[in-house]
Amino acid sequence: SSDNGEHKTDIPLLEQFGLPDAGLHTRQYAGHAVGFNQARRTPRWVAEHITSTKITGPANRKNMKFKADPSIQPHFSAFNEDYLGSGWSRGHMAPAANCKYSQDAMRETFFLSNIVPQNNENNSGFWNRLELYCRSLCSRFDDVWIISGPLNLPQKIDGKDCVHHYVIGKSDVAVPTHLFKVVLAGRSGGRSLCLGAFVVPNEPIGYTPKLTDFQVSLSELEYKTGISFFPKLRRGSWQDLCSVDGCQLMNFHDMECYIAERKLAATRSVHELDNIMQRLVEKGVEPHNGLLTKYKTKKEELLQRFQK
Amino acid sequence: SSDNGEHKTDIPLLEQFGLPDAGLHTRQYAGHAVGFNQARRTPRWVAEHITSTKITGPANRKNMKFKADPSIQPHFSAFNEDYLGSGWSRGHMAPAANCKYSQDAMRETFFLSNIVPQNNENNSGFWNRLELYCRSLCSRFDDVWIISGPLNLPQKIDGKDCVHHYVIGKSDVAVPTHLFKVVLAGRSGGRSLCLGAFVVPNEPIGYTPKLTDFQVSLSELEYKTGISFFPKLRRGSWQDLCSVDGCQLMNFHDMECYIAERKLAATRSVHELDNIMQRLVEKGVEPHNGLLTKYKTKKEELLQRFQK
Ligand SMILES: [Mg+2]
Ligand SMILES: [Mg+2]
Repeated sequence: SSDNGEHKTDIPLLEQFGLPDAGLHTRQYAGHAVGFNQARRTPRWVAEHITSTKITGPANRKNMKFKADPSIQPHFSAFNEDYLGSGWSRGHMAPAANCKYSQDAMRETFFLSNIVPQNNENNSGFWNRLELYCRSLCSRFDDVWIISGPLNLPQKIDGKDCVHHYVIGKSDVAVPTHLFKVVLAGRSGGRSLCLGAFVVPNEPIGYTPKLTDFQVSLSELEYKTGISFFPKLRRGSWQDLCSVDGCQLMNFHDMECYIAERKLAATRSVHELDNIMQRLVEKGVEPHNGLLTKYKTKKEELLQRFQK
Repeated sequence: SSDNGEHKTDIPLLEQFGLPDAGLHTRQYAGHAVGFNQARRTPRWVAEHITSTKITGPANRKNMKFKADPSIQPHFSAFNEDYLGSGWSRGHMAPAANCKYSQDAMRETFFLSNIVPQNNENNSGFWNRLELYCRSLCSRFDDVWIISGPLNLPQKIDGKDCVHHYVIGKSDVAVPTHLFKVVLAGRSGGRSLCLGAFVVPNEPIGYTPKLTDFQVSLSELEYKTGISFFPKLRRGSWQDLCSVDGCQLMNFHDMECYIAERKLAATRSVHELDNIMQRLVEKGVEPHNGLLTKYKTKKEELLQRFQK
């Protein structure tokens, strides 16, 4: 051998002033955990564990404000100013509504470490319906684990494979071309596991595509993200979520009724109450009976209050 | 409070099947350390500590082969096939020539975990001269720490801030738009530290620009990379490397002579020997005396061997 005896890096000397620190540690919050990407100023991934208990409760979005995560150095953080006027909405990765059990947990989902620049229609539409589907799993499974995050996928431009994405604001927050979600659902004790992985373009999707149109194998998602998901889970020890549970998102009619129902609950005037129902009719949506009952109850309540 | 008492994530349950693993640990090699980017299939950063001892010695590039890093899962690795025919060269971050002290250390610099797709002219030209400058620091400082890596910087496209970069091969290896290098040089015991940070476009540079044209503050590089460099080094405890040491790269004449000298050393025929000197003349480069002496010595050596 031509070596002079020094076979290994002199580690103490190499590390005398510290190795580069890309802020790669896992950040724990009350209701979720985040792997943050300091270069992109967005999460790399956000992990949650939800149950029927956690998604039920009195916590609400009122008075919740998006804000820079105080645990992230300003140098590497996104700020509300980056998003405002950018044309991109602030899209939760761990959804606020998954934290109904705790106002504190919900508050932390509004940290920008849990947020990516998301197409507005996607955020309130398809992605919202995917989140609703994930919550609905809690009625059929004891435990649901969800990992969500942004992706920038290559595309062909002038015949060449390119990654092309926007950055917004003074912090150069990276706008993802796609979002991913991995869902693992099981019975108590981690039995009968079902897994589904999805990659959804960060653009308006509408009601025509099905969730299964965006399903990918876990292996493909790992290749695209560079991340190993559920590393302690034996490969192939799960069933396909969409085969077992259908992966049916709420349809247009039910979704419109659901949104109207939420608006009803928040309304404080009879005039606005009637507007909500009127807009449903204009969209050709016939309110289902549950919604009609809620409308009548709320109207009586408001009229009584008005008469006092 | 509206909370039901569960203020913290149930961490054992959240982590039951493991949190996402992006392979973010530091990888130690004989002569360098790597933070690898599994999504890009390139290093995120490569760290070295060099001295006049380490850059001197018998190790050489002969029989050295680029190869996939055996410690990286194939799913997340680059392969030689990704680079071949791509139009991009395999650019070392920790240069092979910084490991003259150890053939083992040099061999590991050929792992593709230490390599990024680099413009060929940049690799053999400006970046090579920057590496030579870093080695030259070893004659004036006792210890030199170097961190190198790829960058994908935003640019204005149609008035919008975008990141746009190519990916190559079946592994979608990310082609950087820029390369960075941070150089910290000191006397023994970490005294009299000088620091310089540079961001160089991944394209042909030529001899007109100076190294200082590409200098940035450490803070600016940290913002661009999302990485904190030398985190144990007190901010502002260093002098500017280029003010103290000049940051002068080798000029065209000296560089051509240097390259010719290396080619002379490797040549095994008189015909090729004369070709090397002839090409210098064609480029208008007058060989310096040291080179002429080496040429004459080598020629005599080859002629004698030929006569035997
Ligand atoms: Mg949302
Ligand atoms: Mg090179």
